[in-house]
Amino acid sequence: MATAGAVVANGSGGPDTRAAFKEIYSKLKEEMLEDPAFEFTDESLQWIDRMVDYNVLGGKCNRGLSVIDSYKILKGVDVLSKEETFLACTLGWCIEWTRRGQPCWFRVPQVGLIAVNDGIILRNHISRILQRHFKGKPYYVDLIDLFNEVEFKTASGQLLDLITTHEGEKDLSKYNLTVHRRIVQYKTAYYSFYLPVACALLLAGENLDNFGDVKNILVEMGTYFQVQDDYLDCFGDPEFIGKIGTDIEDFKCSWLVVQALERADEDQKKILFENYGKSDPACVAKVKDLYKELNLEEVFHEYEKESYNKLIADIEAQPSKAVQTVLKSFLHKIYKRDK
Amino acid sequence: MATAGAVVANGSGGPDTRAAFKEIYSKLKEEMLEDPAFEFTDESLQWIDRMVDYNVLGGKCNRGLSVIDSYKILKGVDVLSKEETFLACTLGWCIEWTRRGQPCWFRVPQVGLIAVNDGIILRNHISRILQRHFKGKPYYVDLIDLFNEVEFKTASGQLLDLITTHEGEKDLSKYNLTVHRRIVQYKTAYYSFYLPVACALLLAGENLDNFGDVKNILVEMGTYFQVQDDYLDCFGDPEFIGKIGTDIEDFKCSWLVVQALERADEDQKKILFENYGKSDPACVAKVKDLYKELNLEEVFHEYEKESYNKLIADIEAQPSKAVQTVLKSFLHKIYKRDK
Repeated sequence: MATAGAVVANGSGGPDTRAAFKEIYSKLKEEMLEDPAFEFTDESLQWIDRMVDYNVLGGKCNRGLSVIDSYKILKGVDVLSKEETFLACTLGWCIEWTRRGQPCWFRVPQVGLIAVNDGIILRNHISRILQRHFKGKPYYVDLIDLFNEVEFKTASGQLLDLITTHEGEKDLSKYNLTVHRRIVQYKTAYYSFYLPVACALLLAGENLDNFGDVKNILVEMGTYFQVQDDYLDCFGDPEFIGKIGTDIEDFKCSWLVVQALERADEDQKKILFENYGKSDPACVAKVKDLYKELNLEEVFHEYEKESYNKLIADIEAQPSKAVQTVLKSFLHKIYKRDK
Repeated sequence: MATAGAVVANGSGGPDTRAAFKEIYSKLKEEMLEDPAFEFTDESLQWIDRMVDYNVLGGKCNRGLSVIDSYKILKGVDVLSKEETFLACTLGWCIEWTRRGQPCWFRVPQVGLIAVNDGIILRNHISRILQRHFKGKPYYVDLIDLFNEVEFKTASGQLLDLITTHEGEKDLSKYNLTVHRRIVQYKTAYYSFYLPVACALLLAGENLDNFGDVKNILVEMGTYFQVQDDYLDCFGDPEFIGKIGTDIEDFKCSWLVVQALERADEDQKKILFENYGKSDPACVAKVKDLYKELNLEEVFHEYEKESYNKLIADIEAQPSKAVQTVLKSFLHKIYKRDK
């Protein structure tokens, strides 16, 4: 790994990187459609083609692109060889292939519950891609173990979210900061923040066992990112973030409701219990008013500042300047974001 | 691998093997509930505990037990060491953990669509179990690749089945022998017949690349097994097989309807097109009458005899007597079965 301090994360998800990334998608999909492990019919080829496009494409690809950016920084170079570009992009696509846990694909006419099986096939594509392009590399086993571990954490976090929301609907006081942190950390932080950097580290020949601190920092960053998400869901500008938040209506174990429960007196708790999780706009408004009354905007900005300072301190304690640069580049992409 | 001709598959799924197998299930489940890769809550522990029991237990465990039996034959021993028993049983349970593709678990109150995520968790358990007990073994990568490849084939076969049934509902003539063979082979044969033997071979230190013929023989056997299943669905004794077949009502791409389509004249085809896939007992009866008119019982018995002879010839062409014994033990478990 390069330890030069002058490395800059230039070209971060820039147009050239994006173009290369997109091109490699087509190649990977083509390989999936020609996989000799199955005798495709015309119908199943068309199905997979459409299903993969529908589910994998269309995101911002931040997670996937950050593998390439991180790898460049770790290597201390601005330009990668063709082979290196291909491998980094391929790992990036493996992450994108996992992105949507419960896609709305099942709502497409004639798809329905076939979507369950399609989800299994998408997951299998990752294994197929890794086997095709990384088998024989010294880090092949670590790559498989990494994807498996992150998937396990993500699915476990998803389960916890599902169970907790269910419990919360019966008794809101089941929501608290510990539960919230656990859901967010497992369901989002590992695959969104740790996985891309871990892929880049493996590609750079590093042993992940030596990067326990990096893992913790990235998981903290992912937690912070999700708290922002919860905040923006209520206080963000819908025009700007591109969606209207419905966490209150949906009874979500949001950072805001958890903070509100921590700070509310008995009367305020009563308001929460009576109005949280209802789709009636009057109920939603009562919850939002309470959030304002409890100064949750300020609580959030305080949390944001503290998180940032803690993260910067932890990052600067890292021995490798290149690793510091990777971590700071992630942090600065999300700090004080408003969408 | 032992090549002694005198090896006998004794104790095949016998009470001792079953007891050892069952005991190891409890240990493996315990490990899953203590997996340090996730911070379980009481609720999520209880959920996983119940979910695993519900979905993994209750089958006949033929696939899982056959890993142990096959491994004993390959090693040429009647009794395995404690360590070997544990590893063979563990691989057997990994197969059982995959068994139910679309469990009725989702019909249990309060489960519903959480079942989709539970399916992902069950699949992840296999990776966790393999990592815990086989990482470091020379065949660890082959084991992972094996489970991945078989899962990919199974999910692809399942997709083909779903798409084909959908097409067949619009136009029955989409069903033919090629389509039927493909579905059966991928959806059932690889995981039910090839996977257990492949696990035993890896455990015995063999390289699967040298066992292409064995794979083909087992896939053929699995195909034959599924054709029996299709036959028994219609012609078997419901009291004896423990269920009432509904392939006709469900518009299944069954071997019987495919054979009927091959042999029917225009009038008979008309009967099929008008009555297949209807739940009305009068329609079902018309289809069954046509099957009898076309002598499908005899066609099946002819197919059964030919398959058996072909399989025996292929098995006896195998250079290793132990491998022959493994394959024959599988074949004799299913030949002329009536349930």
